[in-house]
Amino acid sequence: MLKGKKVAILVGPQFHDEEVPVPRDYLRQRGAAVDIIGLDSSELTGKYGRLTLIPDREIGKSRAEDYDGIIIPGGGAPERIRVDETALQFVRDFWRTGRPFGVICHGPQVLISAGVLNGVTLTSYIGIRDDVKNVGGKFVDQAVCVDGQLISSRHPGDLDAFNETFARALAGELVDAAEKELTPLEALQVAISREKGAQDFYAAVAETLNDERVKNKFKYLSAIEQGHFDQLS
Amino acid sequence: MLKGKKVAILVGPQFHDEEVPVPRDYLRQRGAAVDIIGLDSSELTGKYGRLTLIPDREIGKSRAEDYDGIIIPGGGAPERIRVDETALQFVRDFWRTGRPFGVICHGPQVLISAGVLNGVTLTSYIGIRDDVKNVGGKFVDQAVCVDGQLISSRHPGDLDAFNETFARALAGELVDAAEKELTPLEALQVAISREKGAQDFYAAVAETLNDERVKNKFKYLSAIEQGHFDQLS
Repeated sequence: MLKGKKVAILVGPQFHDEEVPVPRDYLRQRGAAVDIIGLDSSELTGKYGRLTLIPDREIGKSRAEDYDGIIIPGGGAPERIRVDETALQFVRDFWRTGRPFGVICHGPQVLISAGVLNGVTLTSYIGIRDDVKNVGGKFVDQAVCVDGQLISSRHPGDLDAFNETFARALAGELVDAAEKELTPLEALQVAISREKGAQDFYAAVAETLNDERVKNKFKYLSAIEQGHFDQLS
Repeated sequence: MLKGKKVAILVGPQFHDEEVPVPRDYLRQRGAAVDIIGLDSSELTGKYGRLTLIPDREIGKSRAEDYDGIIIPGGGAPERIRVDETALQFVRDFWRTGRPFGVICHGPQVLISAGVLNGVTLTSYIGIRDDVKNVGGKFVDQAVCVDGQLISSRHPGDLDAFNETFARALAGELVDAAEKELTPLEALQVAISREKGAQDFYAAVAETLNDERVKNKFKYLSAIEQGHFDQLS
C-alpha cells in the first residue's frame, strides 16, 4: 500500500515512548520506508524511560524534499526541536511542499515556532491549546483532525485513528482542497473559511489583552475581517 | 525576616520535583507560611517520580487576597493548571493585587493562558520562549528576571537566585516601579518602554506570518507604535 513512500519522524531528547515507535512500525508494516531523524546522532531516551533509540539520520544532513511525509510526535522532544533553527528550516521547507504533515500531542509546538499555523485547524494535547490559538490556529478537540496537508492528534490514545488517516494521506487518498482544481463556489468557500479564521483570531487576541488601547486595535482588525467575511458570505 | 508573610505555591500532576520543595523550604526556614495549593486534594507525584505530596489546600477553596506572594513552579503541572478556569481566575485575581508573583521554568504557561503577559519582561524554560513572545511577553535569558511584581527563572539551576530575589520582593525590598510615586520623567520612561514593547510585539508577529495581507496589517500596527515611541522619546 505504501511501497515507495518515505517518511521522516522528527525526534529529540524526551521523545514520547509510544508516539515514535507506534506510527513508525505501522508505516513500515505497510511498506513505507521510515527515517527517524534526530537533532544529532546521539542515543535518545524516551520521556518515560521505556525506550532508547539511535536516530537513523541527523536533521542537518537531511533534505525535506526527499520525504513524502513527516511526523512530529509529542513528549518533551518538540520543546527541544522548536529551538533548533536547522530543524525549523527543515519543517518550513517540508510545509511548503504541501505533503502530509502529521503532529501528535506536543508536536504542534514546533509548528508554532515555525510560524505556519495561522488560519489552520488542528488538534493537540489540551495543555498547549492556548499556544495554538495565540498564533491563529483553530483548536478542535477530536481524535484526528485533517486540514489540508496537516493531520493532527491529541495523545497516544488517538494513535490508531492517526495512523490510519496519515497512511491514507500518504497514499494520496486524502486530497488537499488547495491542491484540487477548485470550482468557483469551492474557492469562495475556502476564502470565507480563511477570513473567518483571521477574524476569530483577532477577536480572541483582543480578549486576552488588558491594555484597552491595544485591545481596541485588535477589535478593529476583527471588525474589518468580519466585513470581508460578510461580503463573501 | 518573612514572619507574617503567607505564600501560595500552585501545583498539579507532574509538578517539578525540585521546583516545589526547594522554594517552599527556603521560605519556611525564613519564617513565611507556605500553602501548597492543588487543583483538588489528590496526592500528586512529581514529574520525575522522586516526590509525592498532598496539597495543603484546594484552589477552589482558596482566595488570592489571603496571600502575600504566589509561586508557580515548572514541570508538567502548568499545562494542567492552565486549562483549569478556577485556577486561571485565582491567578488573575492575584495578578491584580500587584504582589510578588514567581514563575519558574514552565510556570509562565499559566500566565500565557491567564492573558497577563503582554508587555511584560520575563525569562522561562527556553522551550516555551516562543509562546511567551507570541502573547507580547519580552523573553530574556537570565537566571532571574524582575519586572514589576513578576520574578521569573529558567530552571532548577536558577533556584538559589530565584529564592533570594523572591524573598526580597516578599519582604518589600524590591519595589514595583508602578507602585512608586513616579516623577514625570520616570512616568515618561515607563510609557516609552511600554510603547516599545507593543511595537516589538507587532513587528515580531508580522515576522511569523505567511499571509502577506495579515503580515502587512501587523507591520502597519508596528509602524504606528514606532510613531508613538518616537513622539515620546
